[in-house]
Amino acid sequence: MKERIYLFDTTLRDGQQTPGIDFSVEDKIAIAKMLDEFGIDYVEGGYPGANPTDTEFFGKKRTEKARFVAFGMTKRAGVSASNDPGLTALLQAQSDAICLVAKSWDYHVRVALGCSNEENLEAIRTSVEAVVQSGREAMIDCEHFFDGYKANPGYALACAKTAYDAGARWVVLCDTNGGTQPPEIRDIVAAVIAHGVPGANLGIHAHNDTGQAVANSLAAVEAGVRQVQGTLNGIGERCGNANLVTLIPTLALKEAYNRRFETAIDADRLQELTQLSHSFDELLNRSPDHQMPYVGASAFATKAGIHASALLKDPRTYEHVTPESVGNLRKVMVSDQGGKANFINALKRRGIVVSKDDPKLDRLISIVKEREATGYAYEGADASFAILAQRILGSVPDFFLVDSFRVMVERRFDANGKLKTVSEAVVKVSVDGETMMSVAEGHGPVNALDLALRKDLGKYQSEIEDLELVDYKVRILNGGTGAVTRVLIESVDATGARWWTVGVSDNIIDASFQALMDSIVFKLLKNRDQAGLAAAE
Amino acid sequence: MKERIYLFDTTLRDGQQTPGIDFSVEDKIAIAKMLDEFGIDYVEGGYPGANPTDTEFFGKKRTEKARFVAFGMTKRAGVSASNDPGLTALLQAQSDAICLVAKSWDYHVRVALGCSNEENLEAIRTSVEAVVQSGREAMIDCEHFFDGYKANPGYALACAKTAYDAGARWVVLCDTNGGTQPPEIRDIVAAVIAHGVPGANLGIHAHNDTGQAVANSLAAVEAGVRQVQGTLNGIGERCGNANLVTLIPTLALKEAYNRRFETAIDADRLQELTQLSHSFDELLNRSPDHQMPYVGASAFATKAGIHASALLKDPRTYEHVTPESVGNLRKVMVSDQGGKANFINALKRRGIVVSKDDPKLDRLISIVKEREATGYAYEGADASFAILAQRILGSVPDFFLVDSFRVMVERRFDANGKLKTVSEAVVKVSVDGETMMSVAEGHGPVNALDLALRKDLGKYQSEIEDLELVDYKVRILNGGTGAVTRVLIESVDATGARWWTVGVSDNIIDASFQALMDSIVFKLLKNRDQAGLAAAE
Repeated sequence: MKERIYLFDTTLRDGQQTPGIDFSVEDKIAIAKMLDEFGIDYVEGGYPGANPTDTEFFGKKRTEKARFVAFGMTKRAGVSASNDPGLTALLQAQSDAICLVAKSWDYHVRVALGCSNEENLEAIRTSVEAVVQSGREAMIDCEHFFDGYKANPGYALACAKTAYDAGARWVVLCDTNGGTQPPEIRDIVAAVIAHGVPGANLGIHAHNDTGQAVANSLAAVEAGVRQVQGTLNGIGERCGNANLVTLIPTLALKEAYNRRFETAIDADRLQELTQLSHSFDELLNRSPDHQMPYVGASAFATKAGIHASALLKDPRTYEHVTPESVGNLRKVMVSDQGGKANFINALKRRGIVVSKDDPKLDRLISIVKEREATGYAYEGADASFAILAQRILGSVPDFFLVDSFRVMVERRFDANGKLKTVSEAVVKVSVDGETMMSVAEGHGPVNALDLALRKDLGKYQSEIEDLELVDYKVRILNGGTGAVTRVLIESVDATGARWWTVGVSDNIIDASFQALMDSIVFKLLKNRDQAGLAAAE
Repeated sequence: MKERIYLFDTTLRDGQQTPGIDFSVEDKIAIAKMLDEFGIDYVEGGYPGANPTDTEFFGKKRTEKARFVAFGMTKRAGVSASNDPGLTALLQAQSDAICLVAKSWDYHVRVALGCSNEENLEAIRTSVEAVVQSGREAMIDCEHFFDGYKANPGYALACAKTAYDAGARWVVLCDTNGGTQPPEIRDIVAAVIAHGVPGANLGIHAHNDTGQAVANSLAAVEAGVRQVQGTLNGIGERCGNANLVTLIPTLALKEAYNRRFETAIDADRLQELTQLSHSFDELLNRSPDHQMPYVGASAFATKAGIHASALLKDPRTYEHVTPESVGNLRKVMVSDQGGKANFINALKRRGIVVSKDDPKLDRLISIVKEREATGYAYEGADASFAILAQRILGSVPDFFLVDSFRVMVERRFDANGKLKTVSEAVVKVSVDGETMMSVAEGHGPVNALDLALRKDLGKYQSEIEDLELVDYKVRILNGGTGAVTRVLIESVDATGARWWTVGVSDNIIDASFQALMDSIVFKLLKNRDQAGLAAAE
């Protein structure tokens, strides 16, 4: 019989404290749904009464299976629980549970609350009792618990015990400043349990200020706590909270834990972890971290090196878990020695089936290797890879031809004596023997070229109206201003599909031109639903 | 008397395995210098003999204080140490120490090496002896040590003990697949020590596949190891290695460790940590991680929220260490007091002395803040910062004026029907009322502009003959082809001085132009030995 670990997500509350992140009500609804469907036990939604977004969000219950948690403060000293406006707002919110933050460091009781230690204990007791009486599950978040314990162990323990005795289902030990080390976590959790708060009622809330939020959470589990708090992709105040996307598979897949513990996330759900993590980044409009444990694009990637040949003999002995178990993919870089099997797999993922003995396959491999040696990076440019493979293994129509282009950037003083820079591009395109010239001004030469190129593609023009360039990356591969430049472009269309294309040249305009061309050609192929290309979206 | 923890950096070896990272010899030289100056004990440079870059890099010793380490494999079974070509290449490399990777999991001995367990032990013994006989410090990197121990504890222990008995200064326990958990690390390290390899001779090499590379390293230190391996900013294969930028301040500043241990990094050096981390990202041409422990821009940032008012009363109680201790800054939108002192220090480092009450200083601060908000990064562009400071606090002569420029890139079929792209720039410059027009062709628009700009500066031309642009970096700060672009240019001259300049614009040509201009102006100021500027080189 395994012991149950409860997963508590605070993405919508502590995650909201991340510099640069601000959730709308719609964002919160979407995220709560993702968490609920994934199988998280508790979803903390925010701080009703503290701001209009959270108040609106708590206008109704936002989860089906998960317990929906409202966060707020214990009542202030000097008023009764029923007369405290903050606590009243909390009790009016639509939630299954209420988590109350309480000071447990005597220094903060004095400086931040300005009340006596006893008044604070009394506020904890009566606030928890008010939550219990309202029929909600009560939780206490003991702020600064570990630092408070170091300063005054007796008082920190009294805060935890008071909350437990008053009926709190969970007493959450919070490493607010994030600097506590795993051995300290183990010792202090043990002291709390020895003081009479059972591990089955303890939670841990860790921050990543020394890069150990996950380790601290696991150290607390080792010492006895049974609720773990964290966020999606580890967002949160300062360096972030414990990353649930790392914690969940570690609890589920690592023998050190799964022989004793279980969570609500079963093996099938776990295979959706990579998608969960990437969907959340998508919602935040940021690129996923390639090196994130379990779900990063590099988490199961191996470059040519001393491991490459051994890896081919038996990949499992070079992986601590299988990529499939978390919905990720093994990646052996296209360009390494053992590439052929990988190439066939990479093509298969795009729906292109090719035999191992097909001489065209050897040609494709040698062209890719040659190009990668000059700076192309097909790893990050799926659409350019798909077009190239299609060209070599099958055929790609010549939809249109660019006969020539000219880009000009001019900086001079205008008639009013002000400096002005103008960028202009002229493009000459043939479609079915008909020639079109287009001209456009842009913010810079590449933008002007992009606009001119997509201004008139004759009979194809209506097809690319929904094509949009959403990201443009430039990397100088070596040396000074005459060096080789790699350009990566990300495109989207109205269907929500996204694709990356690449161009390389010692001329940044040429490199950009190649990537722009590939983006348009991919879109046209995609519209025709060419075999294999749909899979690359 | 504190125990010494030795810091071993493998950025140039394991870090090179990071997908998307490829170091040139120049990169490696620059990084080795950064590590050496910072005070790392061991700098592992790569794998001489395995590829041309590493072989050239090991043509000479690249560190002054730090021990310079070559990495390679133990001899193969069936040949003697002196007849093994890999080991011979290693022994010819210019290094102070040699780290040999050895299999310590019997499964890999059988499958990957195809030899017997005894032959592998013999290879470990004779290879270590050969290194010791060459006068180098010998280290063994026990690959898959923890997984190997779980499969066959006796054999893993025998590998470690054999290396130690043969004279290895360090036996490094490697969590190659990165999946080992902290309690397992503690238990297995204890077993190794019990088996007769002293902790003083043990090292730990941890990977971040469960987000616990730092925690695993510290768990190993807790259990007795005295060498810790890691990389700058945690780069490395798959999810990366233990991040030294997190480990070093944790060992130095957290009471759980600093009451027992010390490293070679003193408190003064530690204040350069943020700069070290950011310079390395700059070299990789990537944005620093805002949430990185200690050094991230958000590591000491607080958003308005429940902590804001308490934070104002006493910031220290909301920070686990002071931002100054690691050279970072507190970020609360309150007062510039902290910022001002930092500015004065930054200027002082350049030999520019300015009083706290000088209103020009306030102007400089507000201009820098304004510019940084639009994308300038003066941290990575010392020369542009020096010029700006000099302009606001003193004066900078108008050496020359660029009246206008025009850049053109044209791609078309030439007379022979071949596609050709030509880039040409025309620049109009005035010096002392005299106007010069120059035209040049280049590999791309920026190269053409650079060449035209430096073709004729009249009476200053002879002064800039030895100016050379050695690096050019472009970063797109947001969105598509119309986005804001930041350009950084590195210049050198015949004296060996190097300086970085920056330009920002939504037009890449304009941004490059600004950085090129700053580079030339800095060179002219430098030739005049302007106060403060020499220090920025």
